Amino acid sequence: MDILSLLGFILATIAVLGGSVLKGSGIQALWSSAAFLIVGIGTISATLIQVPMPTVKRAVSIVVWIFKPPSEDVAGVIEKVTGWSQTARKDGLLGLEGNIEEETDPFIKKALQLLVDGSEPESIQQIMDVEISTREDQDNGAAKVFEAMGIYAPTMGILGAVMGLMAVMQNLADPSKLGSGIAAAFVATIYGIGSANLFLLPMANKLKGIVQTQTKQREMIVEGVVSIAQGDNPRNIESKLQGFLS
Amino acid sequence: MDILSLLGFILATIAVLGGSVLKGSGIQALWSSAAFLIVGIGTISATLIQVPMPTVKRAVSIVVWIFKPPSEDVAGVIEKVTGWSQTARKDGLLGLEGNIEEETDPFIKKALQLLVDGSEPESIQQIMDVEISTREDQDNGAAKVFEAMGIYAPTMGILGAVMGLMAVMQNLADPSKLGSGIAAAFVATIYGIGSANLFLLPMANKLKGIVQTQTKQREMIVEGVVSIAQGDNPRNIESKLQGFLS
Amino acid sequence: MDILSLLGFILATIAVLGGSVLKGSGIQALWSSAAFLIVGIGTISATLIQVPMPTVKRAVSIVVWIFKPPSEDVAGVIEKVTGWSQTARKDGLLGLEGNIEEETDPFIKKALQLLVDGSEPESIQQIMDVEISTREDQDNGAAKVFEAMGIYAPTMGILGAVMGLMAVMQNLADPSKLGSGIAAAFVATIYGIGSANLFLLPMANKLKGIVQTQTKQREMIVEGVVSIAQGDNPRNIESKLQGFLS
Amino acid sequence: MDILSLLGFILATIAVLGGSVLKGSGIQALWSSAAFLIVGIGTISATLIQVPMPTVKRAVSIVVWIFKPPSEDVAGVIEKVTGWSQTARKDGLLGLEGNIEEETDPFIKKALQLLVDGSEPESIQQIMDVEISTREDQDNGAAKVFEAMGIYAPTMGILGAVMGLMAVMQNLADPSKLGSGIAAAFVATIYGIGSANLFLLPMANKLKGIVQTQTKQREMIVEGVVSIAQGDNPRNIESKLQGFLS
Amino acid sequence: MDILSLLGFILATIAVLGGSVLKGSGIQALWSSAAFLIVGIGTISATLIQVPMPTVKRAVSIVVWIFKPPSEDVAGVIEKVTGWSQTARKDGLLGLEGNIEEETDPFIKKALQLLVDGSEPESIQQIMDVEISTREDQDNGAAKVFEAMGIYAPTMGILGAVMGLMAVMQNLADPSKLGSGIAAAFVATIYGIGSANLFLLPMANKLKGIVQTQTKQREMIVEGVVSIAQGDNPRNIESKLQGFLS
Repeated sequence: MDILSLLGFILATIAVLGGSVLKGSGIQALWSSAAFLIVGIGTISATLIQVPMPTVKRAVSIVVWIFKPPSEDVAGVIEKVTGWSQTARKDGLLGLEGNIEEETDPFIKKALQLLVDGSEPESIQQIMDVEISTREDQDNGAAKVFEAMGIYAPTMGILGAVMGLMAVMQNLADPSKLGSGIAAAFVATIYGIGSANLFLLPMANKLKGIVQTQTKQREMIVEGVVSIAQGDNPRNIESKLQGFLS
Repeated sequence: MDILSLLGFILATIAVLGGSVLKGSGIQALWSSAAFLIVGIGTISATLIQVPMPTVKRAVSIVVWIFKPPSEDVAGVIEKVTGWSQTARKDGLLGLEGNIEEETDPFIKKALQLLVDGSEPESIQQIMDVEISTREDQDNGAAKVFEAMGIYAPTMGILGAVMGLMAVMQNLADPSKLGSGIAAAFVATIYGIGSANLFLLPMANKLKGIVQTQTKQREMIVEGVVSIAQGDNPRNIESKLQGFLS
Repeated sequence: MDILSLLGFILATIAVLGGSVLKGSGIQALWSSAAFLIVGIGTISATLIQVPMPTVKRAVSIVVWIFKPPSEDVAGVIEKVTGWSQTARKDGLLGLEGNIEEETDPFIKKALQLLVDGSEPESIQQIMDVEISTREDQDNGAAKVFEAMGIYAPTMGILGAVMGLMAVMQNLADPSKLGSGIAAAFVATIYGIGSANLFLLPMANKLKGIVQTQTKQREMIVEGVVSIAQGDNPRNIESKLQGFLS
Repeated sequence: MDILSLLGFILATIAVLGGSVLKGSGIQALWSSAAFLIVGIGTISATLIQVPMPTVKRAVSIVVWIFKPPSEDVAGVIEKVTGWSQTARKDGLLGLEGNIEEETDPFIKKALQLLVDGSEPESIQQIMDVEISTREDQDNGAAKVFEAMGIYAPTMGILGAVMGLMAVMQNLADPSKLGSGIAAAFVATIYGIGSANLFLLPMANKLKGIVQTQTKQREMIVEGVVSIAQGDNPRNIESKLQGFLS
Repeated sequence: MDILSLLGFILATIAVLGGSVLKGSGIQALWSSAAFLIVGIGTISATLIQVPMPTVKRAVSIVVWIFKPPSEDVAGVIEKVTGWSQTARKDGLLGLEGNIEEETDPFIKKALQLLVDGSEPESIQQIMDVEISTREDQDNGAAKVFEAMGIYAPTMGILGAVMGLMAVMQNLADPSKLGSGIAAAFVATIYGIGSANLFLLPMANKLKGIVQTQTKQREMIVEGVVSIAQGDNPRNIESKLQGFLS
């Protein structure tokens, strides 16, 4: 559970609602169905035109990482890889067959399978590098869906505000509605700037950070597996990987 | 058929028209011939000065990819390349001559021809890399035409708004027209921001994504063909290419 | 003759003048000597401080490329290089001495001279690479002069508008001049945004594209000349260069 | 003690408070609890959503570098490394064991330990390079926390201003409060722009500069240690490292 | 003497002062002590927090380059290096000892000293490359001080304008001061945008260009010295360096 994300969401809500109350407009002034339509639907439609289907699906499935990030236990990875190298030294590469079945992550399964099959170290490196960069590209693409939304939302907010001001200006004859009309026009700006800077962009950046950490862990695993394939001794492998910790 | 693009276009239209109705200015307030002239013609003229003729033509011809993207069937490409490697193993490289004629994509035809001609693997790699990057540069350039339009359009919208406000200010003597004049001035802003952020920039980004996918597929094909030229066995080639899938 | 550039300039003028007429302020409202002084002289002075003399001169001399771009005949270059390789094969490298005199481009003359002098292929590559990147840097620098002007112009427009609004505000006592004063203040914005986005930035981008194309052609020539020096056969050289066409 | 940072903080405070007094609104006009809530809490909440816990902790612990930067004594590092090389020449690599205990920096301890253990030069380079880039990534990430806050703060300032203007517009019926309401709305803008540009962004940039300097020092130490492992003579090592000084 | 810089400074002053006169506010309207405090001191304080002491000192010492740039005589450098290569050929490397004393630039002295000492070509390259990049980093850092000021100044201008408008709004009761108050508020904007775009950013860019040219000259010198150490003949060295001229 990512406490910081949860705290961030709660504080962000307090900042907006509390700010509106303190400023004296109250919470109900923050609702406008027209603004919601323009900013919400506008942002979503721009994103749908921009992003292909598999990336949309991946984005939907990784959004939970904001609150439940995948394991980032670097020390655990080092221990696991060192364990493999000891098994390989004791029982030979075939001794790792049991480990393949224990693992649930298909990336680790594939790396170990190549090792057990006796592939050349360069060949393992090359094949697994393609895997790493394919996965990294896909997940970064998914994280950038939220970035794209965070870039489009404020422009939709301006669009909504301009449309609201237009409506006000066309009805200047009735000055009693001037103030409330302008206030309503500004709601779109709040939706656009607020959703982008309090939620969408920070979420995109957290996801990009998680993807980077995962890529680093995968590179560690591949470096370890390649070292095992080269016959390095377990102590050297452990000491090499420990640099990633510091 | 790219359903997401279609949905995006429909929702974008609903967001703008519906928003204008909900705000109370109605749909007819969104039309202004002056704004259309300044934003539409202005954006097009800036683009014409910037972009050379072959890129304009390519841009016009790839815009259909928004709705009908070229095949992105990575698994199919892997199967096809694996098939070639089996043919080559069974019947020799000359056995691939039939495949050249079956193919319609000139890129694949050229790669296979080089293979059948018995070119060196390094030579195939080098020649096809030039092909890949020439095509990628051209298609990216074409996608960036829409990006350029999406960058110029909002500035033209500001230009139109400023010109509209100027007209209003010169006629302050007649305050009854003040409101409708300002409203009309804002229409240019809506054209500029709306066309850029709801259509042009998302389209440019979808096209750039498609170009990237095509480049990756071409790199897979070249990697496969070079592996065949090196005499790698079909199973290894398949397993190497499968990393692109995951 | 670059028809697109010409068309772009004409349409841009129509968009601004026509827009001003349709908006109702007329064409004469677009003239302001104060705005011209601030935006025009301001943009030029910032550029003079930024850019060294040789780059200014080069910028002035390549601006004609907007309408008369240098030859971009890639197919012609391939034919020419293939011709050289055939001459070299038939008559030896010394047979190319006549071609040096026929050529007018000093870049090509230098490359051929190195070839005829019997320089090592690596040495030709190295010397000509320095030539290519020196020329590319100079021409890109010249193209960026227009980019710099396109970046400074809108800020000068804002400067002019603020100065105009200041003048209006100091004379609030005379409200009859309020409207025309604000209108006049906006003219600087139109000069800044219009000159940048309709002319300067698109011109800079077209020039950068031309420089890139020229660099690619020079790289093709060097690749060809180096291949001739290595004794490659004419058919291979032609097929290698053809990848740049597709 | 970083005198410039201290001077900068004092002058920044004078600029804001003195400016407000000279402009005639006085210092008390700069306080608004609503603006503080929206800008302060808003910026913090966006940052919490964006940044993972270890990076937040690291950011808190390096913020003191603004006033007390870690040692940047390049000449001292050169002297120290040259001393090691002389010890190694006189007493062999084992003679450096005493130096390991003297050092407090775990990075230097690890490098010397590898040297004393007789590791291969390439192996020291490789292991220490991972250490350098892991530490650099972590500290840069921590510096970028302040950058992120400096990017979000101004947008929160706009959000607060818009919410303040909304409150004003809803109460247009009471024009006596119009002026003070608008003034209060602007306070959020001052908080956002001021905190970002007078404090957060300059701090982030100073921290990034410090991280870069530390990375360079670590690279010098590794270059020295690797040279010692290669058996270079002390005078050569000193002359090689002196290039970093100039 | 850099005539363009001088001309730029004069024209920039004319543009601002003349524009203010033509707009009708006169020159005295451009002075505001509050604006000067906020924009001037604010920009300086942000820069002091951001930049470490040695970089500030270097920035102060290279600012004269705007008007008196260091020599950019590429042809002279080629001639000088060719002269060294002839001396080395005639009198051996030791014959260059006299040239070391003639030179005043410590960079050239160091390169020649390494040559005379009989260092290996790779060793000269490696040591001098560190020198080049250390000097380039320092001078670029110094040039970026002006860039940083040019980025902070406009935001300080907005800060000052908002504070000025706040003061105006708090005193709406006295409408006679409304106009002059708003005008005074705008002065900060003029200071910020004007100083950044007419002086600071163009100066930063000219300095960056000068640093780049110096780096290129140093690379030429090192390439020449390394060639001499490799025993290349003087004519080849001259022809290799001439590529930098074209």
